[in-house]
Amino acid sequence: MEENFIESYKVKIENRLKMILSPRGRMYDKVLEAGSYSVSNGGKRIRPILLLEFYKICGGEDDCAYNFACALEMIHTYSLIHDDLPSMDNDDFRRGKPSCHKAFGEGLALLAGDGLLTEAFATASKTLSLPFDRVCKGIEILATCAGIDGMVGGQVIDTEYQEETDINNLLYMYELKTGALIRAAATIGATLAGADENLIAAADKYALSTGIAFQLIDDILDATGDFATLGKPIGSDQKNGKKTAVAILGIDKCREMAKEYTNNALAALDEFPGDTENIRNLTKMLLVRNY
Amino acid sequence: MEENFIESYKVKIENRLKMILSPRGRMYDKVLEAGSYSVSNGGKRIRPILLLEFYKICGGEDDCAYNFACALEMIHTYSLIHDDLPSMDNDDFRRGKPSCHKAFGEGLALLAGDGLLTEAFATASKTLSLPFDRVCKGIEILATCAGIDGMVGGQVIDTEYQEETDINNLLYMYELKTGALIRAAATIGATLAGADENLIAAADKYALSTGIAFQLIDDILDATGDFATLGKPIGSDQKNGKKTAVAILGIDKCREMAKEYTNNALAALDEFPGDTENIRNLTKMLLVRNY
Repeated sequence: MEENFIESYKVKIENRLKMILSPRGRMYDKVLEAGSYSVSNGGKRIRPILLLEFYKICGGEDDCAYNFACALEMIHTYSLIHDDLPSMDNDDFRRGKPSCHKAFGEGLALLAGDGLLTEAFATASKTLSLPFDRVCKGIEILATCAGIDGMVGGQVIDTEYQEETDINNLLYMYELKTGALIRAAATIGATLAGADENLIAAADKYALSTGIAFQLIDDILDATGDFATLGKPIGSDQKNGKKTAVAILGIDKCREMAKEYTNNALAALDEFPGDTENIRNLTKMLLVRNY
Repeated sequence: MEENFIESYKVKIENRLKMILSPRGRMYDKVLEAGSYSVSNGGKRIRPILLLEFYKICGGEDDCAYNFACALEMIHTYSLIHDDLPSMDNDDFRRGKPSCHKAFGEGLALLAGDGLLTEAFATASKTLSLPFDRVCKGIEILATCAGIDGMVGGQVIDTEYQEETDINNLLYMYELKTGALIRAAATIGATLAGADENLIAAADKYALSTGIAFQLIDDILDATGDFATLGKPIGSDQKNGKKTAVAILGIDKCREMAKEYTNNALAALDEFPGDTENIRNLTKMLLVRNY
């Protein structure tokens, strides 16, 4: 059941992303190729699926939220492309394939990231089947969560304070770098469905905890996973001289914390009148994932 | 008169940009410093001024278009920061000062660009004093002109076809790389004011010609200007192995073409019922500028 709902979302999201990034018969088609390469690189699509499910449990109808779901995944993908660049984490692999700049060169990877980020807003703004005020608010949340007070801010902290961090600063960085787009997913879904402030706040509470649990599991997988399953070199955080939660607290404590955050996230779902079973299953699955 | 209207716009635009990018007392403030450094680097503010003037001549009232004006300038600035990076044009100077990555390092310059681009959409989306449908349409134009079918596409052509270009491809590249944001300025201004399709089309026609004239003059200045006035090394296009219109056609022919495009732009202004004197003066000034 749970697998089915994820698969059916994934197929629709990926078809739409493919359409948005299809070649246009122009001299600049190469950048669409580079963007598609990274977008279609086997992502879990957690963020767009959460957006669509929150839209649904808040009473949203039809496929009206798909443009925002795709926009969010495009922004997630741009962040991975730029994060892999030599001036950032300098990672040669992503999900088992050469990273974008390894496959297309640094200049084109930079532009593919810029292009995906910009097209994300073009895509979201074309949501003509929902009231304009909700679309504007959705764009505001998307830009704020992806921007300087969100994901970009988290990246800055990650870059600027690589070795001199403690667990509190680290969790703050996770909240921004990973958590902000998860928060965007949940709160945009609720906003587009016309949810009231209380429900949007509950969606945000869910996402804040889920985001940190997600990053803690990522840390554990970076330390314990294997290349074949994870698709990137193991121990890359350590290689880059980055302190992770695993390095500071150890694996057992991290796993325990991830479980606590997951329980907090599940508790926040009690506020919702709609059927939250799918989100609950997805949230539990994220805790025990191995990639 | 003309100088006055430009100055009074500039002061307001720059004050608002300063406010948008002011430090937030957070661990990621460095990225705001890097962004402000580049934004406050003595730009001519042509794009936001055009946006505000088109808003005005189409009947727009009060200061409602300033968020979009600032957003446009932030996007212009991000494009300069990324364009100067070593993997792109590798330029060490911009407007007489070290380029962003020279002053702040490559990683932070990348993130400052990403941050400015994203905050631009957050800023535009917060235009609460205009009807939501116009704001959504404005965001769509902004993202489309700045994105893959606009400025990013132009950058891709510039990167991918550096030496093997002819004058037609070059003009197409100019239309995207430089022209797209000028078109955004004029058409967003008209759209936010509630102009009808005919006027928006006339604004676009004006901007298409102005954008190409603008880039032709840039080429001439790159070949003939001096460092002190221009603020960057002369002949940098040639250094980067780039064919420019000057290299293909020579300076005299380029100047003649720039004049023709300017005349076409001025003719497109005849469609407007409002007072176009300011825009006419600005357009003529762009033709005879020396920086």
